[in-house]
Amino acid sequence: MTDPAPDLATAVDALARRRTTAADLAAQAIAAHDPELNAYAAWTPEATRSQAAAADAARAAGVDTGPLMGVPVSLKDIYAAAGWPTHAGSPKALPAARWERDGPLVAKLRRQLAAITGKTNTVEFAFSGLGTNPHWGAPRNPWDRSRVAGGSSSGAAVSVREGSALLALGTDTAGSIRVPAAMTGLAGLKLGAGRWPTEGIVPLSHLLDTPGLIARTARDLALGYGALDGDAPTAAPAALPDLTGVRLCVPTGVVWDDASPGVTEAVERALSALEAAGARLLRRDVPEVEAAIEVFRTTNLAGPDLYRLLATELDGWLDTVDPSIRQRLDKATEVPAWQWLAARARVAEVSRDAAQRLRDCDALVTPTVALSPPEVEAMQAPDRFAAANGLALRNTAVANYLTMAGVTLPAGLDAAGLPVGLQLLGQPGTEARLLALAQAVERVLGTADDRLGAPPAPTRGR
Amino acid sequence: MTDPAPDLATAVDALARRRTTAADLAAQAIAAHDPELNAYAAWTPEATRSQAAAADAARAAGVDTGPLMGVPVSLKDIYAAAGWPTHAGSPKALPAARWERDGPLVAKLRRQLAAITGKTNTVEFAFSGLGTNPHWGAPRNPWDRSRVAGGSSSGAAVSVREGSALLALGTDTAGSIRVPAAMTGLAGLKLGAGRWPTEGIVPLSHLLDTPGLIARTARDLALGYGALDGDAPTAAPAALPDLTGVRLCVPTGVVWDDASPGVTEAVERALSALEAAGARLLRRDVPEVEAAIEVFRTTNLAGPDLYRLLATELDGWLDTVDPSIRQRLDKATEVPAWQWLAARARVAEVSRDAAQRLRDCDALVTPTVALSPPEVEAMQAPDRFAAANGLALRNTAVANYLTMAGVTLPAGLDAAGLPVGLQLLGQPGTEARLLALAQAVERVLGTADDRLGAPPAPTRGR
Repeated sequence: MTDPAPDLATAVDALARRRTTAADLAAQAIAAHDPELNAYAAWTPEATRSQAAAADAARAAGVDTGPLMGVPVSLKDIYAAAGWPTHAGSPKALPAARWERDGPLVAKLRRQLAAITGKTNTVEFAFSGLGTNPHWGAPRNPWDRSRVAGGSSSGAAVSVREGSALLALGTDTAGSIRVPAAMTGLAGLKLGAGRWPTEGIVPLSHLLDTPGLIARTARDLALGYGALDGDAPTAAPAALPDLTGVRLCVPTGVVWDDASPGVTEAVERALSALEAAGARLLRRDVPEVEAAIEVFRTTNLAGPDLYRLLATELDGWLDTVDPSIRQRLDKATEVPAWQWLAARARVAEVSRDAAQRLRDCDALVTPTVALSPPEVEAMQAPDRFAAANGLALRNTAVANYLTMAGVTLPAGLDAAGLPVGLQLLGQPGTEARLLALAQAVERVLGTADDRLGAPPAPTRGR
Repeated sequence: MTDPAPDLATAVDALARRRTTAADLAAQAIAAHDPELNAYAAWTPEATRSQAAAADAARAAGVDTGPLMGVPVSLKDIYAAAGWPTHAGSPKALPAARWERDGPLVAKLRRQLAAITGKTNTVEFAFSGLGTNPHWGAPRNPWDRSRVAGGSSSGAAVSVREGSALLALGTDTAGSIRVPAAMTGLAGLKLGAGRWPTEGIVPLSHLLDTPGLIARTARDLALGYGALDGDAPTAAPAALPDLTGVRLCVPTGVVWDDASPGVTEAVERALSALEAAGARLLRRDVPEVEAAIEVFRTTNLAGPDLYRLLATELDGWLDTVDPSIRQRLDKATEVPAWQWLAARARVAEVSRDAAQRLRDCDALVTPTVALSPPEVEAMQAPDRFAAANGLALRNTAVANYLTMAGVTLPAGLDAAGLPVGLQLLGQPGTEARLLALAQAVERVLGTADDRLGAPPAPTRGR
C-alpha cells in the first residue's frame, strides 16, 4: 500500500529536501491510476518508473534539472513525444515521422527529467468540449462516473484528479483546459495567445489554439508555469500578499444565462468571500464579452482549419472521424474565406477594445462553465450534444476569442454535487500576475481538496 | 528654368553640405512634374513648398531630423496621411477618421521633415499589377506614353521617373512595387514579410502586403531604407566592395516562360556582366519557386481579404469598384475558408523549404517581369487584361508567397525599347545585405540613368 499522491508543490518540496524520491512518487502515481476512469490512451508505468529512476540517479549525482525533475506528468494525446504514438483521439496513430518526436514543450519536460506517465485521452482532434470520444470512450468524471469529465483535455483532468499525474499538459482552443478542470474540481491555466509554442501539437485552429496546464491547485499551476515558461525553468510566481484593493471585473449578461441549478449560487458565494477578503467587485456590462460570444456562436473559426488538416495532411482520417465532429466539419466546409477573415478581423478588433476597456481590471471574472457535467449516455443524442457543447464552451471561448490568458479554480459544488469553476481572465503576457492573483484567491476559497473534499468513492464495481 | 531633379543620394549630400536647400529641391520637383503622365491623385505643390520651408528653417536652426529632411517624397494613395484624403484608387475618399491621419511609416517621414509631394495614383485597392484605373486613369509609362507604367504602385514609379519625387512609398502584395519600378526603369525595394508595419495602409491582404520604396538607384533605396527602418534614422547599408564570390542562384523553369521579345536576352546580358565581375551564377531547379507560382495561379489568397474589407468596413465601395477587380472579387467570394487556409499552410511550408534550399545563395535572381509593358488601350479587353496581369505578377509574387524581401534593378531594354528589371530576392530580415549586394550589382550594371538613358521626350502634345 502506498500513500496517496501529494500535490505538485508538496512533491517538489519533498524531492528537494530528499524526503521522497522520484521512484516513490512514480509508485504513488501508478497506484493511484484507476483504469475505470479511462484517463489514458497510453498508460505506460514502465516508462514512468524508468524516467523516475533517471531523475533519482541525476539527483544523487548532484544534478538539478529544474522543478519538474522526477515529477509524474501526463501528456494530452495531441502532444507529439518520442516514444509514444499520437492518436489525437482518432483510431489510427498519426504519421510517426512528425508525431513521435518531442515538440518544444515536451522537450522542456524531458530535459527536466519529468516522469511522463502516458498520453491522456482527448476528444478527437480536440474539437468539442464535453470529453466524449466514440473510439476511445469518454473519460469518466470522478465525482459521478455516469457523467462526462469535460473536454477536450478530458483525460488530462482525470489523470490529475485520480493522482496518476501531478501536472497535466493540455490544450485549449475554446475552453479545452478550463472546462475539464472546472468539471472535475481542479485548477487550470490557459496561456495567452502566442505565449507558448504550439509546434509539436496537432493543430485544431492556428488562430485559437493555446497550450496549458491542469493541476490540483493554483500554487501548482504557478509552479508548472515557472518550470515551463521561457528558456529555462524559473521559480513559480509568488502569490499576492492578499486581495486588498484587487479589482475583479464581473461582466453582467450572457455569461450568467442558462446556468445549471446551483452554478450561479456557488460562483456568487465565492465572489462574496473574495469581497469579504478585500477584493473590489466591479460589476459591469462588457460589450466585448458579448461580441466574442456572438462570433463564437455564429462563425466556426476552428472548423475550416481542422478540415484543412484532415483534407490535406492526414489522408484517410476524415473517413473515420467521430460523426458528431464530422457533422460540424461538413458545415465548416461551407464557410467562405471572406467570412472567416471577417470573423478573424472582428475578434481582433474586439480584443483591442476589450484590452482598453479592461485596463482598470486585475482580472475579468465569470463562472468557468454554466453547465453541470452531463451524463455520458445523454450525449449520444445529437441535439442534446450540440446544445450542451455550445453551453459548456461559451464562457471559456471568450478568452480564446479575446486572446486572453485564463485560470479556472474550484468555486464550490452545484445542486447536483458536481464541481463549479471560477474563471479569471487577464491579458496575454500577464500570466505571472494572473497566477499570483489566483493563488491569493485560492487562499481565500481553499484548494480543491480543502473546499470540495475528495470525489466520492467509486459506486460501481472495478 | 530650374535644374533637373538630382537623385536622392546626391540631393541628401548637397543638403548636408548646404549646396542646395529644400526649397530648391522642391522647386526642381515641382518643375519636373508632368501632368500628362498622371502620376498623382493629389498633387500638392503648396504643401511641398511649405514642408520644404520648414525643413530649411530647422536646418538653419541647427537641427538634423534625419536623411530625408527636406527631400521630396511621394505617397501611394493607400497610405493614410494627415492633410490628404485617401482614395485607394476608388472614386470616394475613405472615412477620414481612420484614413486621414499618419500611420507609423508616414509619421517617420513627417518627423524627418520630408516634403511630401502628394498622393500617387494606384490601381483601385492595389488589386492588379498593370497600373490601370478606370476612375483616375492609368499613369503613363514615360518610355512610351501609350503603355502602362505597371502597378499597382503606378503613380509612385512615375513620380520618381519624372523627378517630382526622389523617393516614393509604395506597397507590394504580389509585385506592386517591383513591377512598376521595372517597367519604368527604376529601382524598387519590397521589404520581407512583417518587417515594416502595415498600419495606416489600406489593407489588401494581411498575409501578403508589404511596404516598400521606389527610387532611381539601389544606392537611393539603401538610403531610404536606412532612414525608415527601425526606431530612428540610420545610415544607408554600405555597398559590398565587389561581387567576387557572391552566389547568385538563378532558378530554371517557369520564371523564364512566356517572356516578351528581348526580356530574357537583357537579363542574360546583365547576368553575364555580373559573372564577369566575379559573381558565381548557380543555375538550378528551385521547386519552391515553381510551387509558389502554382499557388499564385490556383488560389486567390488576397481576394477574400479584400472582399472582406469592402463587405464589412467600407459600405458602398463595392458598388463602384473597377469591373476588372469586381470580377475577381466575385470569384474570390467562392473560395472556401478551408481552401484558403490550405493555401496559406502550403505557402508557409514552401517558404520554410525555400529558406533551407537557398541557404547557399546570397540572392535568388530572376527577370523581375517577363512581360513588356502593354498598351493601355489593349488592357480594356478583359481576357487580354487577365493574361497580362497574371504574367506581369508571376515572378514577383514568388517573393510575397515565400515571405522574402526583393529588389529590382534596371537590367536593360527589351526588343520594344522598354525597360527590363533584374530581380534579387533574399530572406526577410536580410534587407540590409540585399541592398549592399544590389549596390554592388548596380556598380557593374550602371544606374538606370547610366544604362538606359532618360526616357524619350514626349511624342504627344502637352
